[in-house]
Amino acid sequence: MTASVSQKMMDELFHPKAIAVIGARSNESTENDGWVSRLMTFGYQGALYPINPKASEIMGLRAYPSVKDVPGPVDLAIFNVPFRIADQVMADCAAKGVKFAHIFSAGFSETGKPEGIRLQNEIQRIAKDAGIRVIGPNCMGLYHPKGGLTFNKRFSNQPGPVAFVSQSGASAVRMIAQGMERGIFFSKVISYGNAIDLDSTDFIEYLASDPETELITSYVEGIKDGRRYFDVIRACNKNKPIIVLKAGITEGGSRAAASHTASLAGSEIMWDTFFRQTGAIRVDDLEELLDMAVAFVNFRRPAGRRVGIVGRGGGLGVLATDLCEKAGLKVPPFHIETRKRLEQLIPESGTSATNPVEPDRDLAAWSAFYEEGLKAINDDPGIDFILTHLGVDIYGGIGTRLTESLDEAISILIKLSAQLSKPLVIVLYAGGRTETINAVLEAQKRCLEAGLPVYSSVPSAAKAISRLISYHEFLDRAAVNP
Amino acid sequence: MTASVSQKMMDELFHPKAIAVIGARSNESTENDGWVSRLMTFGYQGALYPINPKASEIMGLRAYPSVKDVPGPVDLAIFNVPFRIADQVMADCAAKGVKFAHIFSAGFSETGKPEGIRLQNEIQRIAKDAGIRVIGPNCMGLYHPKGGLTFNKRFSNQPGPVAFVSQSGASAVRMIAQGMERGIFFSKVISYGNAIDLDSTDFIEYLASDPETELITSYVEGIKDGRRYFDVIRACNKNKPIIVLKAGITEGGSRAAASHTASLAGSEIMWDTFFRQTGAIRVDDLEELLDMAVAFVNFRRPAGRRVGIVGRGGGLGVLATDLCEKAGLKVPPFHIETRKRLEQLIPESGTSATNPVEPDRDLAAWSAFYEEGLKAINDDPGIDFILTHLGVDIYGGIGTRLTESLDEAISILIKLSAQLSKPLVIVLYAGGRTETINAVLEAQKRCLEAGLPVYSSVPSAAKAISRLISYHEFLDRAAVNP
Repeated sequence: MTASVSQKMMDELFHPKAIAVIGARSNESTENDGWVSRLMTFGYQGALYPINPKASEIMGLRAYPSVKDVPGPVDLAIFNVPFRIADQVMADCAAKGVKFAHIFSAGFSETGKPEGIRLQNEIQRIAKDAGIRVIGPNCMGLYHPKGGLTFNKRFSNQPGPVAFVSQSGASAVRMIAQGMERGIFFSKVISYGNAIDLDSTDFIEYLASDPETELITSYVEGIKDGRRYFDVIRACNKNKPIIVLKAGITEGGSRAAASHTASLAGSEIMWDTFFRQTGAIRVDDLEELLDMAVAFVNFRRPAGRRVGIVGRGGGLGVLATDLCEKAGLKVPPFHIETRKRLEQLIPESGTSATNPVEPDRDLAAWSAFYEEGLKAINDDPGIDFILTHLGVDIYGGIGTRLTESLDEAISILIKLSAQLSKPLVIVLYAGGRTETINAVLEAQKRCLEAGLPVYSSVPSAAKAISRLISYHEFLDRAAVNP
Repeated sequence: MTASVSQKMMDELFHPKAIAVIGARSNESTENDGWVSRLMTFGYQGALYPINPKASEIMGLRAYPSVKDVPGPVDLAIFNVPFRIADQVMADCAAKGVKFAHIFSAGFSETGKPEGIRLQNEIQRIAKDAGIRVIGPNCMGLYHPKGGLTFNKRFSNQPGPVAFVSQSGASAVRMIAQGMERGIFFSKVISYGNAIDLDSTDFIEYLASDPETELITSYVEGIKDGRRYFDVIRACNKNKPIIVLKAGITEGGSRAAASHTASLAGSEIMWDTFFRQTGAIRVDDLEELLDMAVAFVNFRRPAGRRVGIVGRGGGLGVLATDLCEKAGLKVPPFHIETRKRLEQLIPESGTSATNPVEPDRDLAAWSAFYEEGLKAINDDPGIDFILTHLGVDIYGGIGTRLTESLDEAISILIKLSAQLSKPLVIVLYAGGRTETINAVLEAQKRCLEAGLPVYSSVPSAAKAISRLISYHEFLDRAAVNP
């Protein structure tokens, strides 16, 4: 079994006092992307040393021919060099006494070629002998807003409660970029690629005790020590929920994972058992991963699976009901008192005071309905939470009046969410309409800023909430039969 | 068994020479929505008679107190009246000799109330005795661009090959509105609600022989004559594909359908059998319905299920592979010759010349890769079609250069699609980024205008194509064992 990495050492990795960028580009600028400009733009406060034998200055910083020439100590070296010289660079780092190496460079065992495999083994050996802890190769490295670390200068500086441990660099970029738009911000994101040293397990074990992190999400292709991974996930998941996107689960996907990060992907049956026994939350793609993060960050566990649905369009209500029930939720009839209260609030025809509720046809009348209608549903003893779906597209276009009605409806929902005793989730259909999409995204943004969970489709909301409930049910069972 | 409706009679319904709007609003205008203004704005060319006892003129047209006062014949009467007077209005139509009635009004048996049920039975009896064929009640009626009929003035005038037969009005509006943005245009759309006379079966039987219609899509909650429905769908599906969204399939959904259109929803097992035996294509929501329509309209049947995948982001390629295989497609390794050709086109590290292919990191280099790379994959005897996924979001933001690269890539794809012998499908990730979404929607639009199938996620593309193939496989089997 591989050994744990100490919490203290990991803390040092996320708070490096000095970084050397080996292979810094001589033409870096604020416009021209590169590792030095990324860190400077993002606000990294430590010492920064560009390494480039052909430059004397990069981004106003003195450049050095080799990491060995740097005057002070170097905590973290970022390798931005052709893979063929990575062994020599690692030897330089060993000579310098570098603590951590992030090998951004690719071209190693993931190529399946003898040269790449040999070089990977070589840098692994040199690093191990020198006690250098390695992230990668073939990865984006670290994003840590509080420590000023990033791999993209456009990422938000705002920290949040979610950690993402990703074997895939593009998945890490997508999570952060899309997360920013969905109100999800990150404590720490790690893209670790081929994992010749630090692996998913090491990062998750660290994050389990990291006070900045409340939710751990991960993308994994393969793991080195299955037993330790299992134990770490199972222990951690009891205190902090862990969401796992296992990639390379199909026959073709497993082949793809091998040529991506040289991972042994493991069988589907093995992973089924893993999820069943650890209680880790399983998702199938990055959209679902973000949907789950939105649920954990902005939604609280309801008392049960019974949802009261409110939305315009009778058929859309029937579909929403089917989609909720298929996701494992229940859409029961209302208590007779609830129905009576709702009937007072809506016209007698073209509407429905049963579950799912269909209020007035006119979007302008929604706010008034929400104000009283959601309270009536909230008071129903047979309902555990409320889902409302709004679609401006079903009005066939958008005008000032529709935008105003949407704005007003969102304001009421934000106000009510603080008053209701039961959780509320919002589905705002965006569709692909260029005419409406900006108004809808603006409305989504307002909800998210107010801490209200918002989704763009009923299935995505229903699946996320159902899985959130399943997670808590797993913990309940585990508490009885530990 | 209910009787078929003649093709000639249905043709008359879709080409009414004179329409009376009973209950036309006296304050209708081009800004203020209503049935008269909808038809006028949309370009309906026949005689139009507003009926309103309190107005003498509406939208510049002479108004009449009753349909009985209209000087000429009336083919179609649209009921926009309180449900309590619908029986009297139907009696007036009978006296006038009206051929068709579209009852937009709601408040009938879907309410579950004795008064609504009694009135519905009454108008059904009057219409039947008078030989008036009825659409509704509780529905949006007809959208027929070629005949100038619509229920929303913002809908496109452009006709297309897709018909939609929908028991739900909001679903009909959403299909048309979203369809317009996804390159899907309609021959005829029918929203038929409670279906006291003309039912889903009647419309589908008509559309099966309708030369304007090449693909039939439908939303159904319940049907009246199960045997005839089954026979009509099975016969039609052999010549024109039929996609069925069955709503009210779960316990809660079935209850919701009862209070929406007073439908008996039928059991899940019954519907499973129906789909297996008719070969009708099953979808679970409107998004999937549109995804399928895009596949049938813009994609042609590939020789098999083996897909070659191209896209940036190694992990995103692994996920795309998993998602394709989970949807029933295959992502096989390339022929050695294909791999050799691809290796010539991309840098040796940070890329992959296997399936899924990962071309150069730089979006600006994509166009050059596409030009030659897609031809190499097209020549692979083990590949039946190509899927490429593009995500500008993984660059963490968008600038002029990225927009230009995207534009250029789309131009190449459009050009290539005409040259490749195998079908091509495009996935353009939009995400929720306000910064990038307009550029992505613009790119999607260009693809669709060029007749290229485009989706916003891999699962939606993969599921739609897999189902399209399954449809053809069903026909193949049926041809052997009719």
